[in-house]
Amino acid sequence: MNRILRLNMTTRTAAWEETPLTCRGLGGRALTSRLIREEVPPTCHPLGPANKLVLAPGLLTGAPAANTGRISVGGKSPLTGGIKESNSGGLVSIKLARLGIQAVVVEGHPQDDKFSLVRISQDGVEFLPADDLVGLGNYDTMARLWKRYGQGVGVMSIGQAGEKRLTGASIHFADPNGRPGRAAGRGGLGALMGAKKLKALVVDDKGAGGVSLADPEKFKEASRRWAKYLLDHPVSGQALPAYGTAVLINIVNEAGALPTKNFREGRFEFAEDISGERMAELIKARGGKTKEGCHPGCVIQCSQTYHDAEGKYLTSGFEYETIWALGANTLIRRLDDIAIIDRLCDDFGLDTIEMGCTLGVLMESGVIPWGDGPAAIDMVKKVATNDPWGLIIGNGSVFTGRALGVDRVPAVKSQGLPAYDPRAEKGMGLSYATSPMGGDHTSGYTVAINIVGCAGGGDPLKKQGNIERSRNLQIATAAIDSTGLCLFTAFAILDNPEALQCVVDMINARFGLDLGTEAVTALGEAVLRDERSFNRDAGFTRAQDRLPEFFKEKLKPHDVTWDFTDEEVDKVLEGF
Amino acid sequence: MNRILRLNMTTRTAAWEETPLTCRGLGGRALTSRLIREEVPPTCHPLGPANKLVLAPGLLTGAPAANTGRISVGGKSPLTGGIKESNSGGLVSIKLARLGIQAVVVEGHPQDDKFSLVRISQDGVEFLPADDLVGLGNYDTMARLWKRYGQGVGVMSIGQAGEKRLTGASIHFADPNGRPGRAAGRGGLGALMGAKKLKALVVDDKGAGGVSLADPEKFKEASRRWAKYLLDHPVSGQALPAYGTAVLINIVNEAGALPTKNFREGRFEFAEDISGERMAELIKARGGKTKEGCHPGCVIQCSQTYHDAEGKYLTSGFEYETIWALGANTLIRRLDDIAIIDRLCDDFGLDTIEMGCTLGVLMESGVIPWGDGPAAIDMVKKVATNDPWGLIIGNGSVFTGRALGVDRVPAVKSQGLPAYDPRAEKGMGLSYATSPMGGDHTSGYTVAINIVGCAGGGDPLKKQGNIERSRNLQIATAAIDSTGLCLFTAFAILDNPEALQCVVDMINARFGLDLGTEAVTALGEAVLRDERSFNRDAGFTRAQDRLPEFFKEKLKPHDVTWDFTDEEVDKVLEGF
Repeated sequence: MNRILRLNMTTRTAAWEETPLTCRGLGGRALTSRLIREEVPPTCHPLGPANKLVLAPGLLTGAPAANTGRISVGGKSPLTGGIKESNSGGLVSIKLARLGIQAVVVEGHPQDDKFSLVRISQDGVEFLPADDLVGLGNYDTMARLWKRYGQGVGVMSIGQAGEKRLTGASIHFADPNGRPGRAAGRGGLGALMGAKKLKALVVDDKGAGGVSLADPEKFKEASRRWAKYLLDHPVSGQALPAYGTAVLINIVNEAGALPTKNFREGRFEFAEDISGERMAELIKARGGKTKEGCHPGCVIQCSQTYHDAEGKYLTSGFEYETIWALGANTLIRRLDDIAIIDRLCDDFGLDTIEMGCTLGVLMESGVIPWGDGPAAIDMVKKVATNDPWGLIIGNGSVFTGRALGVDRVPAVKSQGLPAYDPRAEKGMGLSYATSPMGGDHTSGYTVAINIVGCAGGGDPLKKQGNIERSRNLQIATAAIDSTGLCLFTAFAILDNPEALQCVVDMINARFGLDLGTEAVTALGEAVLRDERSFNRDAGFTRAQDRLPEFFKEKLKPHDVTWDFTDEEVDKVLEGF
Repeated sequence: MNRILRLNMTTRTAAWEETPLTCRGLGGRALTSRLIREEVPPTCHPLGPANKLVLAPGLLTGAPAANTGRISVGGKSPLTGGIKESNSGGLVSIKLARLGIQAVVVEGHPQDDKFSLVRISQDGVEFLPADDLVGLGNYDTMARLWKRYGQGVGVMSIGQAGEKRLTGASIHFADPNGRPGRAAGRGGLGALMGAKKLKALVVDDKGAGGVSLADPEKFKEASRRWAKYLLDHPVSGQALPAYGTAVLINIVNEAGALPTKNFREGRFEFAEDISGERMAELIKARGGKTKEGCHPGCVIQCSQTYHDAEGKYLTSGFEYETIWALGANTLIRRLDDIAIIDRLCDDFGLDTIEMGCTLGVLMESGVIPWGDGPAAIDMVKKVATNDPWGLIIGNGSVFTGRALGVDRVPAVKSQGLPAYDPRAEKGMGLSYATSPMGGDHTSGYTVAINIVGCAGGGDPLKKQGNIERSRNLQIATAAIDSTGLCLFTAFAILDNPEALQCVVDMINARFGLDLGTEAVTALGEAVLRDERSFNRDAGFTRAQDRLPEFFKEKLKPHDVTWDFTDEEVDKVLEGF
């Protein structure tokens, strides 16, 4: 697994390369961020030829262990201008790992305007014209590629938004059903793939030997324990499989931290209508499926197939963040309307969080009315047309705010904020402010402690303890994102010190190492150092580690404000 | 003259205040930048209530001396996110000075959505509803206000672009004919005025006593010498009055530094068609006027009245930068088309340099064809309509580049570059890169030395000497911009050391001081310190002091590239 595949889009050629020494022993986010740090000029234009798009399976990806099939996608973000790692499920990661590819680095720019399709298999790498795919959404693209190359091949693709290089564009990965419900959603990496003129990547691992294990017995034993920790934990073993991530709607609403009407209130009157419980009811009544995995080997199964009222497939991978962004944040209360927009976003290749924040800004300025689902649907549809509104909203919330002169835009480093109001979940506010990724919930998910109650719990409304929580979780998450592990394994890890040991045991058995759990911290710290130093050289300072000014307003129901001083915020990632 | 007028737009009340100690003895840009440095939180949203719009006449404004009537307009720039001083002619500056007002600080935000008109006179300050003016362009706004308040009152206003808070919006000042050809064009300050909900400011100095002079005799003597220096210099005494600033078209084209087709070449095949000489010919043939001043007391008279082919008024203040931006940069060669766009920009309140760069980006992406004047006119007209294209192009070149996924955008700190290719006028490239204003020609106009040949001349194609030239001129310009002097007095100052002494003599005679010429340098340095420190706290680093990557390409006809290292660029404003 010490080889890297470089796809040169200028010459449309592939080259294999031994992994550089500085990248040995790295996977996932640690590897994408290291490669970007070392190879991408921090001040380059994100859509110019000097930027690179990097894919990397995690350290454990491809090995027979539960929930290790995530992929890291990195680059200089067209949305934030800083470094980006965006994490997704799907089939590509495991297949790359089985093909012995530690990373794929997409480089350069073709001189002409033609999109390519690249196919990676045991037989080598092929560059093919993608003329027949251009203009298609991700649904059709994936369907055609499964038809052409066989059901079950890995597909990564962009829709119309990525083709147009819109900075709200995401990169999609076929799930085990061949649907694009899985995405490296954040940071506009779809625009980077579009700028590289790469419409889709097909990864076929037919005939691949699989991932080697230094100590198969030890691995098997650890992996068995590992699955049990996941299944025994009430969040990963019960809540997520039953209701999907949308189980959080009622929980976060109850906590008074569900951002409502463009972050004006912490509770949504109609939260029940868009809750995970309601979704599960509808799915069952309409013949969908409540439990699905985003990649083979997932034991949590938080995904689902959501049908419309006629019982026809509508969407999948219908997440809490999506439902909040397009629901409570915009006051749209009809779950089917939200599902239609989710489907459009998956098809066009748009980040649903960014689109939800963007619709909130549109409603803020009166372009469409609050809570108007059909108007929002019509607006999102414009992204795939030549209507200039599509160019505006497809570029995200800050861009749309600027188009419309709206100064109430919930974003950090130009990335729209996720589904936890930072005033009522102060740890998340710190993670939003300081993460090198921009406003991001996965980077340091203090909700697991403050609201879900893991690791002894914490108070989301008080400052106390949250600087440390955000810091420690940002370090730990950077490490987890490097292993290929699903972030939802963190609940079990937070509640069982042995679960972390188990992860280390698996890494040791996989590579023949003898690391202790402190290695996890060291890995996470190294990742943050790479990322923060890239951002510094790209021109970021502490001035960008700030929440928008309007969070000084009081938030109902708890009447809380964002009350951290700048000095306190700067402590979170001090030293990185 | 030790009083400041604060206009609180939240409460719609005015307050007089003694000038803070730290602002005593300052005028123009020195004062706007100091007030912003001290009072505006650098990380605030530029369109939020914490930002302030500051107007200040210069130190010599209102006194009887040639070319001292310029005004500085400052704020945190909605376009660049950094500090901004934008400088204009017109009637307001002298009138404020005669009313004894050192600065006007526009603060806050109304809670409702109503625009105000503010009138300042000897009788006090009135806040009036501007309902009848909303939606009007600057031409109609100024005409109505002259009709209502008397011909010759000072008017500052925004058009539809500022009302919409588009970040390419400018602030316009009525010239002595009551036309909006004068603008604080750059940096989107029109959006800031729009966010303050200030449609127009009327300044009436009827009955004002005028500016006091500590030593009237000494002032008179110095001011007489001063006018002679200006009139004796071939640039300010002959070239500018004869052909306006557009005299530069042929000169810069000949030098191979006229950016053509979105900065692809240094010469425009049809430069002659859009030259100052051609313009003067047309003006004379059509009954316009080749010589006009932008404010009373101007002896240079570089402005003009430009008629259309039917002999009807079309535009005025038709500048080199405008003609280049909308002409050579877009390959539009019909001067009347360019004049129509200039007129639209003045009317809607749009920066013509930014619009020219923006049209270049539109053409780059194929939205409209290169050189198509009528298509460009139709596009610009959309800014005053509800067409979303107007929202895109009205926000400037970088914004439009992002909407369209174009990475070839000539801009620094998000401000479109002016009319000198930085490869063939390397001193300007350094000024563009490092000025706290973003890509700006007035901040350190090395063209005066390198191309016009003042101060012994310099080589625009070579690196040698240009670091010092850009640095020294940036310091000197910051001082000149603080005096109320027109920048075109710099030609005489560069060529006659006695002319600078003359300026200092006037300042001394005005205030009863005994400064030497070294005080000018000290003043300029203080301004740059204020501005650079504001920008640092706003999150700017050296990473933003860079030209776009595409300037590595060779530029015809001289086959020059942008070849300064980052370290060399950083020397320009080292220590600030």
